[in-house]
Amino acid sequence: MKILNAKGTKDFLPEEKILRQKIVDQLREIFELYGYSPLETPCLERMDVLSAKYAGGAEILKEGFQLRDQGDRRLGLKYDLTVPFCRVIAMNPQLRMPFKRYQIEKVFRDGPIKLGRMREFWQCDVDVAGCKSMLVDAEMVAIASDFFKKVGLKVVIRINNRKVLDAMMEEAGVEEGKRDSAILTLDKLEKIGEEGVKKEFEEKGIDGEKVLDIVKQKSLKNNEGLDELNELEDFLKLFGVSDYKIDFTLARGLAYYTGTVFEVQCKELDSSVAGGGRYDKMIGGFLGKGEVPAVGISFGLEPIYEILKRKEKVRKSVTEVYVIPIKCFNESLKIVKELRVAGVKCDIDLKGKSISKNLDYVNKMGIPYALVVGENELKAAKFSLKNMETGIEDKLDVSGVVEKLKSCDCIHH
Amino acid sequence: MKILNAKGTKDFLPEEKILRQKIVDQLREIFELYGYSPLETPCLERMDVLSAKYAGGAEILKEGFQLRDQGDRRLGLKYDLTVPFCRVIAMNPQLRMPFKRYQIEKVFRDGPIKLGRMREFWQCDVDVAGCKSMLVDAEMVAIASDFFKKVGLKVVIRINNRKVLDAMMEEAGVEEGKRDSAILTLDKLEKIGEEGVKKEFEEKGIDGEKVLDIVKQKSLKNNEGLDELNELEDFLKLFGVSDYKIDFTLARGLAYYTGTVFEVQCKELDSSVAGGGRYDKMIGGFLGKGEVPAVGISFGLEPIYEILKRKEKVRKSVTEVYVIPIKCFNESLKIVKELRVAGVKCDIDLKGKSISKNLDYVNKMGIPYALVVGENELKAAKFSLKNMETGIEDKLDVSGVVEKLKSCDCIHH
Repeated sequence: MKILNAKGTKDFLPEEKILRQKIVDQLREIFELYGYSPLETPCLERMDVLSAKYAGGAEILKEGFQLRDQGDRRLGLKYDLTVPFCRVIAMNPQLRMPFKRYQIEKVFRDGPIKLGRMREFWQCDVDVAGCKSMLVDAEMVAIASDFFKKVGLKVVIRINNRKVLDAMMEEAGVEEGKRDSAILTLDKLEKIGEEGVKKEFEEKGIDGEKVLDIVKQKSLKNNEGLDELNELEDFLKLFGVSDYKIDFTLARGLAYYTGTVFEVQCKELDSSVAGGGRYDKMIGGFLGKGEVPAVGISFGLEPIYEILKRKEKVRKSVTEVYVIPIKCFNESLKIVKELRVAGVKCDIDLKGKSISKNLDYVNKMGIPYALVVGENELKAAKFSLKNMETGIEDKLDVSGVVEKLKSCDCIHH
Repeated sequence: MKILNAKGTKDFLPEEKILRQKIVDQLREIFELYGYSPLETPCLERMDVLSAKYAGGAEILKEGFQLRDQGDRRLGLKYDLTVPFCRVIAMNPQLRMPFKRYQIEKVFRDGPIKLGRMREFWQCDVDVAGCKSMLVDAEMVAIASDFFKKVGLKVVIRINNRKVLDAMMEEAGVEEGKRDSAILTLDKLEKIGEEGVKKEFEEKGIDGEKVLDIVKQKSLKNNEGLDELNELEDFLKLFGVSDYKIDFTLARGLAYYTGTVFEVQCKELDSSVAGGGRYDKMIGGFLGKGEVPAVGISFGLEPIYEILKRKEKVRKSVTEVYVIPIKCFNESLKIVKELRVAGVKCDIDLKGKSISKNLDYVNKMGIPYALVVGENELKAAKFSLKNMETGIEDKLDVSGVVEKLKSCDCIHH
């Protein structure tokens, strides 16, 4: 038997998972501060839901994992969190609008494995349904801005509006059947440059010169999309958001967007770290009637993690202090109990190893503190707390240890 | 198109997910206090790993979801967290022992759908590998005891040892080939009673009378399992755990246990809420050599949630205070921003509804407080904070609101 992971999947050992969990906790915190509540949907969905007309489209469906249950029902693993969100709204007419939810879950895509592109990965989505106001579009941008400030990443949030793009294509004389395709080409401007884009336009039989002229001159007048962008900018001012730019070349790949689109670019990585937009028709499509306005943003845990891990010290354990008993295990365990009650993440040598072997273990695991408990220490009720980075030792009683650890930067980030 | 969930799966709307998340957070907290670090493994595993000899066995494999990726590789969805844990240890020889990890993830079983038995559900596992000492067996029991105390559930932790069971079967003259089967029958004593068990023994051609005699008299002498149980009880005293009982009828279904087994029974539900034991041979089986001692416990999110939801007030939103602007949206949004910076989960009417409609919304969502902001309030810099349960209104400035909410029982549990 070969002991391997399934292709395109990987494990996250504590040294990675601790930071990943921290990022997810920070996202949750921001989402909840903005009044978004958690939702959970299954990994398994019926294939006819995943392949619905208003869902992700053929491109994404090609990468879907498919299977059958024992009743021979056609199922698939979910490939995004937007389709389940729409399904939930369609199935729950009792939900009060606006419905503000976040969802942090794994999604699955059986696609080619490029660097960092796994077959199962986390999406962190926040969406609101039932509100037409540009205020919620602004709220999405504000959430992104707040989050990246909080984790210390400099970003630019590029913003555009699909209606602006449509109008520009019309003005450039791009025939209606080719407009979506032209928009996708334009979307690559930052990636492949002007020459690359022009070449692709030519191949598609589109007058690229003219499209680029109009985009650069921003010569559009009296357009609903422009009005929406202006309104959005006013609200962004109210929210105090300034790390954005209006960018008429931004399109976002997916076909279901109907208005505002945005994408968050981090200067330290050549990839977007979050993106989203308004999709007013998708939920109505699922419902089979009417229009339910919606807007959302999806944060990519993988690229955010890739950037942040370069900045953080690796820890292989959540343990804050490791207790090393010298021949007095029972008394040491008592101290461990007190520390845990006080909220200190605490571990103790269970194998009766020597002090030096224990200190070596503490060091290798990146645990910030060691606490040595011997007979002399017990008599004095003062224990030796060693800072593993500086080597400095303090003699403290249990409450002193708790206080020291609670005020330690290296622990409570 | 039928808009439905896949059979045996369900969505968790905020009114359920908020409490479920809280339970998971509480488990995480306890696990980390005991020095266990998080691990994540994929949903997708290679079928040859899932069907390995030392894994869950035929019973569990029968319920496995199987699929193929586009490269036609045989994959399955993981059905527990123990097999991936063993795989991770086998694949990562650099891991330092003892390796203490927790894992809170979904598992998948394509089995019959009985009440509360879904086809994907959460397991919350904590395990340690590389330590033979009964101390870690005691630690597992202590974690369970701590957790259920913390969430306010009265439990009894039944404890036994497989070596005791084996010896009893031997003493009762059960032939070796029938011992595992006899143990499984004995395990049903609490469920189907003495008569039921006797009948099943008879069907299996086992002298049930004798087995029950020996179990009841606890007449076993000089047995390794008994010694281990005694040692475990000594350590449990050290940990301060008293809500357990030694129960010689407890077997636990799975074949891979080798020593201590335990199961947590909650008096309010006719089902176990957690269970586990020692499995010293499974990881070695994966490694293809030697023995790596291991012990773990798995908490069932579903039964714990089922009990706790009866005791908690349902909240459909995480929002702590809902701001209702009377014609002064911009100023209100400023206040919302201040509240969020202070860590208050806060939402605001985005649609310009009337006060009464807003209060109705706040009420229906179970949001504990509403804050009304009008021109008079702005002039006085005092806002009207309404407690939605008592109806009492306080006039407070922003920092007064923050203080009030931070000290409110209904919010920070």
